[in-house]
Amino acid sequence: MLPDRVLIVEVGPRDGLQNESTPVATEVKLQFVRRLVDAGLSQIEVTSFVNPKRVPQLADAPELIAKLPNAADVTFSALVPNEKGLDRAIESGVKRIAVFTAASETFTQKNIGMSIDESMTSFASIVKRATGAGLSVRGYVSTCFVCPYEGEIEKERVRDVTARLLDTGVDEVAISDTIGAAAPTDVRETVGFVLENIPAEKIALHFHDTYGTALANVVAGLELGVATFDASAGGLGGCPFAPGAAGNLATEDLVYLLDRMNIRTGLAGQSDVDLAKVVDAASIIANALNRPLPSAQWRRMHGSCAGDGA
Amino acid sequence: MLPDRVLIVEVGPRDGLQNESTPVATEVKLQFVRRLVDAGLSQIEVTSFVNPKRVPQLADAPELIAKLPNAADVTFSALVPNEKGLDRAIESGVKRIAVFTAASETFTQKNIGMSIDESMTSFASIVKRATGAGLSVRGYVSTCFVCPYEGEIEKERVRDVTARLLDTGVDEVAISDTIGAAAPTDVRETVGFVLENIPAEKIALHFHDTYGTALANVVAGLELGVATFDASAGGLGGCPFAPGAAGNLATEDLVYLLDRMNIRTGLAGQSDVDLAKVVDAASIIANALNRPLPSAQWRRMHGSCAGDGA
Repeated sequence: MLPDRVLIVEVGPRDGLQNESTPVATEVKLQFVRRLVDAGLSQIEVTSFVNPKRVPQLADAPELIAKLPNAADVTFSALVPNEKGLDRAIESGVKRIAVFTAASETFTQKNIGMSIDESMTSFASIVKRATGAGLSVRGYVSTCFVCPYEGEIEKERVRDVTARLLDTGVDEVAISDTIGAAAPTDVRETVGFVLENIPAEKIALHFHDTYGTALANVVAGLELGVATFDASAGGLGGCPFAPGAAGNLATEDLVYLLDRMNIRTGLAGQSDVDLAKVVDAASIIANALNRPLPSAQWRRMHGSCAGDGA
Repeated sequence: MLPDRVLIVEVGPRDGLQNESTPVATEVKLQFVRRLVDAGLSQIEVTSFVNPKRVPQLADAPELIAKLPNAADVTFSALVPNEKGLDRAIESGVKRIAVFTAASETFTQKNIGMSIDESMTSFASIVKRATGAGLSVRGYVSTCFVCPYEGEIEKERVRDVTARLLDTGVDEVAISDTIGAAAPTDVRETVGFVLENIPAEKIALHFHDTYGTALANVVAGLELGVATFDASAGGLGGCPFAPGAAGNLATEDLVYLLDRMNIRTGLAGQSDVDLAKVVDAASIIANALNRPLPSAQWRRMHGSCAGDGA
């Protein structure tokens, strides 16, 4: 039994841009976000309050948030790594934040310089303060299937970290395939296991499309009853000059799949997400980076695929 | 219950090259085929006996077949459109041929200049003569989900054409999503319906990846018990200069999925298909065409994706 309706969490402005070394002007990002809103996306992760020295691309987070369009039905969110980031987020006026840890101890250490236990202690305090300030909070768990350092990740670790994050007070956990290695069998095993204890309404799935399996994984998630999926317009999110890196599942490819499966993508009573307008939004970034994008829709519309010709 | 083992029918040398306007030398094609054999592929559709004036790229079919490597466990096949093509195929010494019709009347008319009924009459005679000459025969049914001219295709038509083709004596029918429009729900509905009357062993699935859904569709097929899938090394098969065209499901992406799902891809008692060697084989054609390829593996190994940068 598939869900009738899916919520697409658009992460392109944050996850899609954070690894881009070419600076993208705030006004261009705003144009991107405005078009995403116009396309009917109702949850958009727009930026991150990580240390601007670590991610200069997103150093304009406060300015960006100040200039976001007025859109009553749209929730904008920002990533928050620590207390200092939360100070900046609260000051910016953003209404939703996201915290992030991982199911792999090594990845957590390398990514945020803490153990998983330490990250939980840190986030418990951040989530409490954020919700006290009227913000809602989502949590990410990275490397839920395969870790680039540790290899295969046990499903028990994913369940435990997910449960602990929910205990801190986040309203949703995005189980993430950070390197895009999972197949539908992995989704069934790991996410199916998590869902034995945790309601599907609390779970989002976040896939990268490194090996082309992201849509197949979405279908496995739908079949488990999950109805929230992260995606990035254009399939932004890889580092195009680093072999091995690949982008998020492309929003337009997800929209094609869901449309074809007769699953609604708009909020109740509103139109579905408009595929062509998502591609139109992504083209803002393609132009800014002077580079084509990896989504199937983009390839279909603009000719075949690339990289170098070797 | 998923199959333990899948047969991958490699169609790159035929379906992948037939639309390429840049001539590829016979020796280059042979190098491609030799590497595909070396990668462990055991069924390879190498060329077509269509009118050489219509498809000049494959005009070298007799020469190519004469020079194919000796490979005891590998079956090479060629497409045959009519009696004249069969004459040429028999003369060439190829041991397996493929005939093709469609589930859409308009597509059949435009593609092969016959009605579906006429194509069945023609193929009944061809299949009889081919099997009499010791050749085995596969059948393709194009446009089984969506036709570019007629739109949605009813499952009853797919079942009927498939059954009629099997009645002519073909040993397998490849149910084909010619324009790559299907989603897993389509596969379940149409292929599931066909399988109510026809054993899964008689069915292959042939997907194009126009919208990125091909691997998701493979999983739907596997869940229905189908264990034969067509694919094309590198994702060859689209026309890169024609927006809207897209290649076959890439063999290496299929191999990644099946490996990860713990499904064997080699013949019983032999090694699985070697993903890296498939990419290596595809690179022969990428070099010959001086163009990157659309598979996820290729993008991962050679950088991000492309088309123009608009």
